[in-house]
Amino acid sequence: MVNFTNEHEMFDMMRDKLSASVISDVLDSLGARGQGMRSDIRPVYPGAIVVGRAYTVLNVDIYQVFDDPYKGEIEAIDSLKPNDVMVVCTNRSTRTCFWGELLSTAARARGARGIVIDGYTRDAAQITEMQFPAFVAGISMLDSKGRSMVIDHGCPVNCGDVLVNHGDIIFGDIDGVVVIPKELEKEVIPLALEKVEKEDLLRDDLLKGAMMRDAYNKHQIL
Amino acid sequence: MVNFTNEHEMFDMMRDKLSASVISDVLDSLGARGQGMRSDIRPVYPGAIVVGRAYTVLNVDIYQVFDDPYKGEIEAIDSLKPNDVMVVCTNRSTRTCFWGELLSTAARARGARGIVIDGYTRDAAQITEMQFPAFVAGISMLDSKGRSMVIDHGCPVNCGDVLVNHGDIIFGDIDGVVVIPKELEKEVIPLALEKVEKEDLLRDDLLKGAMMRDAYNKHQIL
Amino acid sequence: MVNFTNEHEMFDMMRDKLSASVISDVLDSLGARGQGMRSDIRPVYPGAIVVGRAYTVLNVDIYQVFDDPYKGEIEAIDSLKPNDVMVVCTNRSTRTCFWGELLSTAARARGARGIVIDGYTRDAAQITEMQFPAFVAGISMLDSKGRSMVIDHGCPVNCGDVLVNHGDIIFGDIDGVVVIPKELEKEVIPLALEKVEKEDLLRDDLLKGAMMRDAYNKHQIL
Amino acid sequence: MVNFTNEHEMFDMMRDKLSASVISDVLDSLGARGQGMRSDIRPVYPGAIVVGRAYTVLNVDIYQVFDDPYKGEIEAIDSLKPNDVMVVCTNRSTRTCFWGELLSTAARARGARGIVIDGYTRDAAQITEMQFPAFVAGISMLDSKGRSMVIDHGCPVNCGDVLVNHGDIIFGDIDGVVVIPKELEKEVIPLALEKVEKEDLLRDDLLKGAMMRDAYNKHQIL
Amino acid sequence: MVNFTNEHEMFDMMRDKLSASVISDVLDSLGARGQGMRSDIRPVYPGAIVVGRAYTVLNVDIYQVFDDPYKGEIEAIDSLKPNDVMVVCTNRSTRTCFWGELLSTAARARGARGIVIDGYTRDAAQITEMQFPAFVAGISMLDSKGRSMVIDHGCPVNCGDVLVNHGDIIFGDIDGVVVIPKELEKEVIPLALEKVEKEDLLRDDLLKGAMMRDAYNKHQIL
Amino acid sequence: MVNFTNEHEMFDMMRDKLSASVISDVLDSLGARGQGMRSDIRPVYPGAIVVGRAYTVLNVDIYQVFDDPYKGEIEAIDSLKPNDVMVVCTNRSTRTCFWGELLSTAARARGARGIVIDGYTRDAAQITEMQFPAFVAGISMLDSKGRSMVIDHGCPVNCGDVLVNHGDIIFGDIDGVVVIPKELEKEVIPLALEKVEKEDLLRDDLLKGAMMRDAYNKHQIL
Repeated sequence: MVNFTNEHEMFDMMRDKLSASVISDVLDSLGARGQGMRSDIRPVYPGAIVVGRAYTVLNVDIYQVFDDPYKGEIEAIDSLKPNDVMVVCTNRSTRTCFWGELLSTAARARGARGIVIDGYTRDAAQITEMQFPAFVAGISMLDSKGRSMVIDHGCPVNCGDVLVNHGDIIFGDIDGVVVIPKELEKEVIPLALEKVEKEDLLRDDLLKGAMMRDAYNKHQIL
Repeated sequence: MVNFTNEHEMFDMMRDKLSASVISDVLDSLGARGQGMRSDIRPVYPGAIVVGRAYTVLNVDIYQVFDDPYKGEIEAIDSLKPNDVMVVCTNRSTRTCFWGELLSTAARARGARGIVIDGYTRDAAQITEMQFPAFVAGISMLDSKGRSMVIDHGCPVNCGDVLVNHGDIIFGDIDGVVVIPKELEKEVIPLALEKVEKEDLLRDDLLKGAMMRDAYNKHQIL
Repeated sequence: MVNFTNEHEMFDMMRDKLSASVISDVLDSLGARGQGMRSDIRPVYPGAIVVGRAYTVLNVDIYQVFDDPYKGEIEAIDSLKPNDVMVVCTNRSTRTCFWGELLSTAARARGARGIVIDGYTRDAAQITEMQFPAFVAGISMLDSKGRSMVIDHGCPVNCGDVLVNHGDIIFGDIDGVVVIPKELEKEVIPLALEKVEKEDLLRDDLLKGAMMRDAYNKHQIL
Repeated sequence: MVNFTNEHEMFDMMRDKLSASVISDVLDSLGARGQGMRSDIRPVYPGAIVVGRAYTVLNVDIYQVFDDPYKGEIEAIDSLKPNDVMVVCTNRSTRTCFWGELLSTAARARGARGIVIDGYTRDAAQITEMQFPAFVAGISMLDSKGRSMVIDHGCPVNCGDVLVNHGDIIFGDIDGVVVIPKELEKEVIPLALEKVEKEDLLRDDLLKGAMMRDAYNKHQIL
Repeated sequence: MVNFTNEHEMFDMMRDKLSASVISDVLDSLGARGQGMRSDIRPVYPGAIVVGRAYTVLNVDIYQVFDDPYKGEIEAIDSLKPNDVMVVCTNRSTRTCFWGELLSTAARARGARGIVIDGYTRDAAQITEMQFPAFVAGISMLDSKGRSMVIDHGCPVNCGDVLVNHGDIIFGDIDGVVVIPKELEKEVIPLALEKVEKEDLLRDDLLKGAMMRDAYNKHQIL
Repeated sequence: MVNFTNEHEMFDMMRDKLSASVISDVLDSLGARGQGMRSDIRPVYPGAIVVGRAYTVLNVDIYQVFDDPYKGEIEAIDSLKPNDVMVVCTNRSTRTCFWGELLSTAARARGARGIVIDGYTRDAAQITEMQFPAFVAGISMLDSKGRSMVIDHGCPVNCGDVLVNHGDIIFGDIDGVVVIPKELEKEVIPLALEKVEKEDLLRDDLLKGAMMRDAYNKHQIL
């Protein structure tokens, strides 16, 4: 039985014990088979792990410089709360970057745990130095001013071909980003912890030289 | 003259002395100009080098969960022999990953030297820690159960736009993966060792400040 | 006021104090909004920074082995001068690699500071070891002999969707490659140094916990 | 109320009165929002309309010529029944064509109403002359022998990014192909007939010069 | 000298006498070399020609059904004036269609001359029957409700890789769509009429058997 | 036995009796399995059929306007002889079009039978009216001046992923373009005529209601 005095503790435990792969397998077993983001959304630095509640943002390409050009983005960042993970839908824009070092600094000051974007970031070196977990579709230096703007936040978005609702749990590591729908989180976490243990037993048998067939028959997982 | 008491020793020598680039140049010179895999097949970790005999696998996308869902894949893994390199054709599938840590563990237990996939793997962190040379088109956490299955092994396959026959020699390093057809291996290896030596002489001249034109005229290679 | 006794000193200063992002922002502010290369042109190794004058090269795909197959490429390399950065347009070729260790050695011997290619390189390990700043669209082992050739150099080229003129200043780092048109360089460099200072002040405020809205209103940059 | 003495009559009525667009709108209204195939699946000739029950086929790329190379495909074609529409998943293969004139002739002799492929056909001229409704991702002359083979039929498949189950109703016209899940067909057909009527009224108002705002407010559809 | 009593007459003359190719050549000669849209934007039916003033629309992908889901689109359509050509930027969306028969009917009732979309339409058969000139990136039956919405009109947009300003002249025929910036229209039209005449003379010589070299030397155009 | 007094007569017979599909099947049976061009190379108008000897052209993208900008192209066109089919490699360029009405007129005046381009044409309407068989990867209005130029002709080229040698026989119809290597033409033509006859017998049986299995067993073709 899993009990936490608060979400922060729960997300830390998940970060330390679980992985995107094991969570994805459990979601599969519960029939939620479309929760893993497209493989082009990658961590900015090796070892990045992100886990927290989705704070969704919808960002669109534009073709003129507006007054107060970062209005929506600033509003979204200032709305972040502890344990949030910003999840940004740019509709796969390749013409600008949504994120950078200064925004990472501001987000961290609010308690946010990371960001996932189906678009680009910049300041990859500083984000790495800060160890602010950012998962992105690419890196570019082009500022968003006059190229894109936030038109909504807290709304349903698509990120990496997964529909993400505000408040879903996001888990990202080197194997990619997976989304746990709010209504499944109670089920998923204990099952994932269980699967980790079974995998440890299977690995032990394989290390001792067991054939895959025998090991799979015995443990019934892979 | 190159002599080896066994294949293991030969593959170790190749790993230590040769490179994908020099092998590719020699294959070019023999008229085998289509032996370098597409550049999106990359090592999972820096420094990975794979060399061995191709154990070919044909994996296809499916849309239902079968009984014994890993049947073909388990069979293929349990058939691996020392010095084998699994070469997997998924027909460039992006909807699942074929490989992971547990399978790497089982393959290594059989003596396999690595894997090349025109698709995805997961458990990239553990594969890196194990230093199991894996060359893949991407990383994803999605399990193959109900998404793909092995329909044949030991058959001709296409991997990274190269036709690979069971038993061909595979060589992969940071510059990509190259396939030495069985019928050319006797010729390729000594010529590749020769080319390495010539490149050393050319490099020395360039380091001393020779113009490229003069250095090329003298050594006739690049 | 910025003063340099020579270009070498100026490029070193730029490398140490500026970034692709800040230069891109300044170019944006001057109305030059198409100067950042496509995001698939990436450094071969982490930490690579390139800055210098564009030495442009136009390379095209061919389908036969010519006599003196590297003629144009050798000529271009032997023409390099101190502080040059070779900028190569392959029209996004994926069938060969343009560059490698030996060419890097020759280019460095001429005083060149790096290379940017909208195509592939090989010898990524040795280029990393040499720390020769190379920015490329990918890595492949396939030699250019009979696959591509240089047909012009010193001409206008397209690289990463930016029109580059011979002699433009090139700046590349982890966030990508940006091109400073010759006629803007006098304006761009001092403005970029200014922007770096403003960002430092903004960062300080954010680290002290300022809301993004307040920090942006105060500093008017992002 | 909609009543048919048999399916043939029902499909003829659907072909004459409905459209892919109106069916898609009704499916949307019922919450089935992922039933329209990708837009690259197009009719072979102008005016082609297909409607019937999905006979699903799973076809995969291979790299050798087997004995009895068309075995699975022949079996599938000989299994077709009146009112069937073959729905073929090739996993978007571009290396061969699945279909042609002779197979159209055989399928029509069994009573099949058409075919939908996420891959290629050949004999486009003869298929046009026969007016055999074929919807495909492209046209190529390359025979499947040694390039692909049928590994299953009657199974769930993906075609144009829609999961199709054996027995679903398929409707394709110039606007693309839409899939009506078996469990929704009773609801969809009468609602679609209703929507057609409403659109006629809306069109009349627009033809008389009504502003879109007023016409939409009055009819509440678009 | 070109004189028109009104724009309607001018656009009719352009439709009858000019072509996208000849206009593009003239724009090239004036240094406006980026005015031809990407080649995937094609007429819905053979023979479609569109010419008129751009009424720009910015449409973005969304992931929920809003109240009054067509609000922006209806507003844009009801704002159309005689001789307008709607130019829609969807940021190359492939998940919905922006246009259809009813909207064509409404647009024509306002006097609009056609539409250009970097996205999809539906009702291709009815649009063909109406002969409403529509140029699109593809055809799909999926309604925009809950999939996309208009967020601005009358603003600068990108369509087919060309920046289009509200009021620019749009010319589209079987060879594609070209944009004449407002500030160049006075120059472009007479030069285009001139080029048509020169091409007639060149064609005559070629039909009489002139070598291309001689004909080009004489007429200096191609 | 096939006998012709001249090539013109032979190509006319091939155009009237053969098809790309049947020729491709025969080439497959002779082990020449890579002779069918990529499916994006399509006829400009329905019913276009091209057959003749390849006159190869290599065209590359450039980024400046040269003196005598069409020099290479004019030279190539003026070199065409009766029964030639121009085969143009643009290395899949999408930034310009290689062909148009005036060039078609000049080519026809030399006796050329058509053109195949792995790039774009313009003047699609006039080419259709002239019935000049053109097979292209797309349609665009952008002139080649300052965008591309011919650097060689009569050389080996790649077109649609097939290596084409000057003088190979080209056959294109609605199903695509296939290349008969010079050394196989004597074998291919009689075998293709034979296959056409067998297909007629098979079709007859299918029209009479034969099951595919029985018909295939009897005729051994598909």
